[in-house]
Amino acid sequence: MKRLRTFIALAAVPLFLAACGNLSSSSMSGTSGGSKSGGTQLTGQSNDGDYEGVIKSGHYQTSKSRGVTNSQDSGNTYNLKSFENGMLTVSKKIFSTKKYVFEEGQHLSTSTVQNWLDRQSKSNTTGLNPKSNGSTSATKRNPIYIQALEEQDYMTQKNNKLTLSGMTIGIAVNSVDYYKKTQYGATFETKITKAEGEAYAKKAADTVLARMRKKSGLKNIPIVIAIYRQASNDSLVGGNFIAYSENKAGTAKVNKWNALGEKSVTFPVQSGSSSPNSNDASSFSNFKSEVENFFPNLSGVTAQAHYSGNTLTGMHVNITTQFYSQTEIISFTQYLQTTAQKYLPSSVPIDITVSSTDGVQSFLNRASGEKKFSSHVFNSY
Amino acid sequence: MKRLRTFIALAAVPLFLAACGNLSSSSMSGTSGGSKSGGTQLTGQSNDGDYEGVIKSGHYQTSKSRGVTNSQDSGNTYNLKSFENGMLTVSKKIFSTKKYVFEEGQHLSTSTVQNWLDRQSKSNTTGLNPKSNGSTSATKRNPIYIQALEEQDYMTQKNNKLTLSGMTIGIAVNSVDYYKKTQYGATFETKITKAEGEAYAKKAADTVLARMRKKSGLKNIPIVIAIYRQASNDSLVGGNFIAYSENKAGTAKVNKWNALGEKSVTFPVQSGSSSPNSNDASSFSNFKSEVENFFPNLSGVTAQAHYSGNTLTGMHVNITTQFYSQTEIISFTQYLQTTAQKYLPSSVPIDITVSSTDGVQSFLNRASGEKKFSSHVFNSY
Repeated sequence: MKRLRTFIALAAVPLFLAACGNLSSSSMSGTSGGSKSGGTQLTGQSNDGDYEGVIKSGHYQTSKSRGVTNSQDSGNTYNLKSFENGMLTVSKKIFSTKKYVFEEGQHLSTSTVQNWLDRQSKSNTTGLNPKSNGSTSATKRNPIYIQALEEQDYMTQKNNKLTLSGMTIGIAVNSVDYYKKTQYGATFETKITKAEGEAYAKKAADTVLARMRKKSGLKNIPIVIAIYRQASNDSLVGGNFIAYSENKAGTAKVNKWNALGEKSVTFPVQSGSSSPNSNDASSFSNFKSEVENFFPNLSGVTAQAHYSGNTLTGMHVNITTQFYSQTEIISFTQYLQTTAQKYLPSSVPIDITVSSTDGVQSFLNRASGEKKFSSHVFNSY
Repeated sequence: MKRLRTFIALAAVPLFLAACGNLSSSSMSGTSGGSKSGGTQLTGQSNDGDYEGVIKSGHYQTSKSRGVTNSQDSGNTYNLKSFENGMLTVSKKIFSTKKYVFEEGQHLSTSTVQNWLDRQSKSNTTGLNPKSNGSTSATKRNPIYIQALEEQDYMTQKNNKLTLSGMTIGIAVNSVDYYKKTQYGATFETKITKAEGEAYAKKAADTVLARMRKKSGLKNIPIVIAIYRQASNDSLVGGNFIAYSENKAGTAKVNKWNALGEKSVTFPVQSGSSSPNSNDASSFSNFKSEVENFFPNLSGVTAQAHYSGNTLTGMHVNITTQFYSQTEIISFTQYLQTTAQKYLPSSVPIDITVSSTDGVQSFLNRASGEKKFSSHVFNSY
């Protein structure tokens, strides 16, 4: 039974700082985006903290295994975004956005990744998941450990040429393996503990690293491998990266793993769950009750919060409303601006999205270190 | 056959400038939003160009005829937003956002407005729409001219008290009256020319003004009446305000109408339609073709543009994509930032929204007079 698997090979988006003299004089200036010449351009950079991306002959350089992305049709879509964003976050620890440019993965093809994500078998010797042992019992079968594998390429620029100078491979491990005993049958679950999944992924990481080193051009670049633990399908947040390794040029086996104490939680805190910092949870709940008073009826105020250890690193607040008039949305957004500043944790980046059944109505955000929220009300002529 | 009609009575949202000493010392400071005391607060102000709104005892002061809003279940939803926003725009010509505070309409009740929007008849002597003449022929029947009526209240602040100091009434006239000959039957259309609709609405405006003057507290305030012509249901933009009158305290009949040369168009320009300025249309089409090249497939790039006379006053660009990975969205958004700056008309406010079937993915905007677009990619943990 072949399963559809999440797979996104992310390619490296070139980073390029206008304030950075040695790069900005190049023809790959971000502001030339859209030129139709045959050359390579960069996308331009929104802010210093993001990588720029590669455009070739006017087209975005998409991932070699891009097609696999679309076979992700099930499960928890939060995993997808948090896996991709988390890979960027880990990469930024090693590949500075001031020096490196991002390109979507160009070295692993769709079929390679599909085979790697499948079970090992006679016909698929490269499978990273264990052979089937024939059992369909939740506790006795060999589960699918590795759910997704993604490549990101990091380039540097010299003499108007982009050179591959680093790579990040993300390996996503299941916390729950969902499986069926018969086609179209009921879905069963094999739970995988954090320790078990992590150990399996670290073993697979050695295999992956050795395979990558055999590919042309990948022998002498640093390759970062990061391990992600997927959230279960009923989770309202995605999973988290639990460890990463920086593998210097030439090394074909992981030397050292660095643990990552990342955690995503939802507010209000779900029963059976807890927040690393109860102050944040009560700040949110004060905010929530202020906001819920504003209109006669408001359907929901929830948030995703992200922690590194016990430190809050960011929050996404979602507010769902019934239909409101445009002036009500404008007033509500102004009110949120002052209320969020008053009640929500200070100094971390926070987004607030106000949606109705018609889609996003308004949006507020505050960057790290800022005091005031900026806002936008979506409009129409 | 009673029809559901658009009706939103907009109430006045108090405007209040932090930079404005005489107001900011008051207890109604916007930053106190959310206080649960019995008093009146303001929502706080996002920017100088918006009115602040009124909060009473922690709740937003919703419109007295708010319920009617929800009976709007058909037609062109663009009309709804553009009618409400347009009323604010007209109001700002007379009631400065620095001095006035906005409150949703408190003087016209749901039943009053429902009766006014209905046909005149023995049982409904206040109906602003003509008596039925019995005909069901598209060209012979008396159409429903007035589709919506909305009230906005404008308050000033003195000694910590808000006083009604102005009002705007919006009257929306159909360009097409959609009607049925039998319940659940086919929909027929009676077209109403601009001249005919405008003349009818101006006559109705006199009636409305006289009625408002009889209400307690409304005799001696300026009442602005603005006439809006609805777009047809198949339009991809809303209608436009065509005229407004400023009626000084005490006047019970409109003295003078000011024409408004507003026009909303869609880009690419639809067949049978034209843009007031062909440069803008070709700027947009250059932008569109650059953007469409970026990804292997991109479903649509359209825009709503708004003109005052032949002068472009703003643009909303909508880009719909298939599912993309998070890194693709980040790169695409960076690319849009540079491409929009290069190709789209300069110095007017422009929004760009990137959506997929999963909802809004990213968003860019540039305020009037700015050069660079700022951007936000929607994210998840």
